[in-house]
Amino acid sequence: MTKITILIHCKDKPNIIASITNFIANKGGNIVYIDQYVDREQDIFFMRLESEFEAESFITTDFKACFKTELAETFKMKWRIYSSEKKPKMALFISKYDHCLYDLLGRYNSGELNLEIPFIISNHRDLEHIAKNFNIPFYHIPVTKDTKKEAENKQLELLEAHKVDFIVLARYMQIISDNMISKYPNKIINIHHSFLPAFVGAKPYHSAYKRGVKIIGATSHYVTEELDAGPIIEQDVTRVSHTHAISDLIAKGRDLEKVVLANAVKLHANRKVMVYNNKTVIFT
Amino acid sequence: MTKITILIHCKDKPNIIASITNFIANKGGNIVYIDQYVDREQDIFFMRLESEFEAESFITTDFKACFKTELAETFKMKWRIYSSEKKPKMALFISKYDHCLYDLLGRYNSGELNLEIPFIISNHRDLEHIAKNFNIPFYHIPVTKDTKKEAENKQLELLEAHKVDFIVLARYMQIISDNMISKYPNKIINIHHSFLPAFVGAKPYHSAYKRGVKIIGATSHYVTEELDAGPIIEQDVTRVSHTHAISDLIAKGRDLEKVVLANAVKLHANRKVMVYNNKTVIFT
Amino acid sequence: MTKITILIHCKDKPNIIASITNFIANKGGNIVYIDQYVDREQDIFFMRLESEFEAESFITTDFKACFKTELAETFKMKWRIYSSEKKPKMALFISKYDHCLYDLLGRYNSGELNLEIPFIISNHRDLEHIAKNFNIPFYHIPVTKDTKKEAENKQLELLEAHKVDFIVLARYMQIISDNMISKYPNKIINIHHSFLPAFVGAKPYHSAYKRGVKIIGATSHYVTEELDAGPIIEQDVTRVSHTHAISDLIAKGRDLEKVVLANAVKLHANRKVMVYNNKTVIFT
Amino acid sequence: MTKITILIHCKDKPNIIASITNFIANKGGNIVYIDQYVDREQDIFFMRLESEFEAESFITTDFKACFKTELAETFKMKWRIYSSEKKPKMALFISKYDHCLYDLLGRYNSGELNLEIPFIISNHRDLEHIAKNFNIPFYHIPVTKDTKKEAENKQLELLEAHKVDFIVLARYMQIISDNMISKYPNKIINIHHSFLPAFVGAKPYHSAYKRGVKIIGATSHYVTEELDAGPIIEQDVTRVSHTHAISDLIAKGRDLEKVVLANAVKLHANRKVMVYNNKTVIFT
Repeated sequence: MTKITILIHCKDKPNIIASITNFIANKGGNIVYIDQYVDREQDIFFMRLESEFEAESFITTDFKACFKTELAETFKMKWRIYSSEKKPKMALFISKYDHCLYDLLGRYNSGELNLEIPFIISNHRDLEHIAKNFNIPFYHIPVTKDTKKEAENKQLELLEAHKVDFIVLARYMQIISDNMISKYPNKIINIHHSFLPAFVGAKPYHSAYKRGVKIIGATSHYVTEELDAGPIIEQDVTRVSHTHAISDLIAKGRDLEKVVLANAVKLHANRKVMVYNNKTVIFT
Repeated sequence: MTKITILIHCKDKPNIIASITNFIANKGGNIVYIDQYVDREQDIFFMRLESEFEAESFITTDFKACFKTELAETFKMKWRIYSSEKKPKMALFISKYDHCLYDLLGRYNSGELNLEIPFIISNHRDLEHIAKNFNIPFYHIPVTKDTKKEAENKQLELLEAHKVDFIVLARYMQIISDNMISKYPNKIINIHHSFLPAFVGAKPYHSAYKRGVKIIGATSHYVTEELDAGPIIEQDVTRVSHTHAISDLIAKGRDLEKVVLANAVKLHANRKVMVYNNKTVIFT
Repeated sequence: MTKITILIHCKDKPNIIASITNFIANKGGNIVYIDQYVDREQDIFFMRLESEFEAESFITTDFKACFKTELAETFKMKWRIYSSEKKPKMALFISKYDHCLYDLLGRYNSGELNLEIPFIISNHRDLEHIAKNFNIPFYHIPVTKDTKKEAENKQLELLEAHKVDFIVLARYMQIISDNMISKYPNKIINIHHSFLPAFVGAKPYHSAYKRGVKIIGATSHYVTEELDAGPIIEQDVTRVSHTHAISDLIAKGRDLEKVVLANAVKLHANRKVMVYNNKTVIFT
Repeated sequence: MTKITILIHCKDKPNIIASITNFIANKGGNIVYIDQYVDREQDIFFMRLESEFEAESFITTDFKACFKTELAETFKMKWRIYSSEKKPKMALFISKYDHCLYDLLGRYNSGELNLEIPFIISNHRDLEHIAKNFNIPFYHIPVTKDTKKEAENKQLELLEAHKVDFIVLARYMQIISDNMISKYPNKIINIHHSFLPAFVGAKPYHSAYKRGVKIIGATSHYVTEELDAGPIIEQDVTRVSHTHAISDLIAKGRDLEKVVLANAVKLHANRKVMVYNNKTVIFT
């Protein structure tokens, strides 16, 4: 069997659901998962649907073409169709912090992540040994003020050469250029070490300490041109008290960052995230 | 417009979703909400669907009859269909604790609960004044060993006279007879003051204290013949430490009990709960 | 026995703890609780201590005088000493929302709160009936642009006449003047319906909805001149998703607000909160 | 400076705190941390105290001797005194699951753990490569029904040869004998993959799935003769729903197990845990 995942959004109209389910049935598919949501304020319809087809008679490109002319154009849908055979390819961008890297590679090794990691890029060599231990190609691309553009070109070359589907910034600590963002829209996942929108920008644990909050958080979001303001995929929090020094917040925060980033990666890799109006619709 | 909510479960088969959505479309309905789940272990299909029809041409009894012959019998479905016009009627059984009562009546007053409360029954008069303040009929039905059967008959009379849809035991503290349970299957909601299945039975906070747990909980479940073993609707927990005496656990637990019970009541009243194999499927 | 609670902070120095425990022992007291914390960044020592004395031989004013000359002046301490006999008096300021009011009065009635409520002030009459049900004097003091100063004078008269110790703004929805804040420094407790410092100011649930956060929160803090920027006493959060409309956030938020405010009130009333550098040190 | 940590418990009596603080002051120590708790039900006093002494004039053995005769005997204290110079030595027992191992070694590498790991013991060779990557000696000691006693002797030899202070069972999956437990009382830390006391024994995620709980947990506790019934050090939980298969519970549980075990290890290594009546008192 071939399994197809369809993500749709469009203006809400009567009979959308029946039209889609009919279309699938007519093409010989069996719907195994359907979830839908309507944003009543914006009047936008969202749907995620998984459907199974007999493998021998099913050709993905033909299906997409039919879907486009018979359904998508009628309802003016934005749509994406994925075949389950093709695992998404994720590039990891890292710097000097190893906790998110160990966590993601541990999950990757255990089979928890439905994706491939063609390579890791870092602006430092500090974590190269970890990439080696996990047998993943490592590219050291230093970034300085003067070489920023050149470094980005090398990154883009690698991304294109490996047909990377999405990028994960696992505490990469560098600003991504608007050029790269425009090439990977809603496909660059960052982990920010605060409960956004509180404590945007650098040193959020220091700011949290200064403000005396009783709870700290971490936020995973898609990178957009505005810093730390992209669509939020996942957040989590943990309690702290006056007894926690900044170093304690950093240590407790690491546990949050790992799990929040991993959850965001899983949601994205499993095609469960749709973006609209700088917000995410997440079908679980 | 008339809004219909349909809950279905049956053996999983190909084309169920398409058949249902087609049926709705053929009857002139517009699906506004659809959610579905398949238990892959048991191979059971579950669905919750909301659909809108032109009010003038729609007759609920006719629709149900068609649904039964054209769809339900083919797929051997268990099904329930609700019209949104009719709010469910909830009877409140209470005893001497007031926290869940105040909480539910406060939400009822604020319009947060989509239901009607025709009356409150208690085996004590202690909280009668609260029922009065909220203008809800209060029936004092004492329960002793000797009068248990007689008391239940009075309760059943009231329940039937008011066509009550479901019963909420807001810390009622009395065992419900198998007879009454059989008359209201998966329609009696209890709040148990522990994180079930830990600490079944009486005095769970005392047991939690003795065991030295670091987290306590509350559980709302449907009442079945086995004590505290019915399908779980909602649970929540909170942290405790060695510094908390039993009285502290009881006080912290009250906050859990209120919110957990209220959430379970809302899920049930909004027809979002299905029961299968002593477990709940909850469509949110 | 007379029970005394002492709160101290001062520059950290060697032998502070021994000096204090010695002082208590010399006065015939038995220490039943001691907790201490040192802010290593600021080098500030904080302590909370409970001590019991024979009631007949103990005179609080004498003890305070000795404490001042023998201890506090030596270490240049900021200090407060409370006798457990005197329950703190809390004034409630409310407006039109009833959830925090019901919650606090329910806890008050159940004996959960170690305080007295001499009266409730509101700028509207909507909730007067609740105050009556709980037998608490209710003062209707309307606030308009023109009468703001006059209204505040009435409020201050009542506060002084009843020797009120602290004020709780249970969704009072009015800005407190700098004049009143200066008369009750770190003695006015507010509940803000967001996870501060995110979403300062009006309509935080609307802002949270717009930003697409996956977790919402509530924050109780002392009122200072800068809006929503005072020392945080307590915070809590709950998960939300794209399916929650603004009205859902508001309903879920009510449950947070109630518990967070109640916890802050209990901490303050039990003299467990110290304020320093716009942050709280909380001894539990 | 030499830093000493003292843990005490004894029958509660007047003037204990003053006696202890006086003793420290007389020996020339400066108390930098003090925390205490009284179990009012059992009338037991607990204290944790950190104190600094001039290194040149301080001899730990002398101090202990004085403490014993001048203080401990008078109050019939159970006591432990640790010098901060000596990091505790932790032996890791593992089997085939790598998530807790990676997590603990990652924290160890980052300097988050205040301890030494002299070696790792496993009954399988599967994770030997991880021990090597982190440069920690690995001993493969197979355990079968027939070799159980012999294997234990090898384990005990290693433990004694390296003067191991405590043992962590990082999903070791073998029953520890009463003999070994008696040699390391309250010094063997286990991670159980459920919210104890719910789901004692094997396959707790399967039981949680069957019961239909809405929250799963993990528990770290000291190993005692009764299975999964020892003093609880730390617990944490996470939400699940009907959509989660057993494999999902296992994956979500891994994240809990890692953090709960790491927190328990940190509390123990920092000498913040006292055990009494099969419960823990934890000073944070």
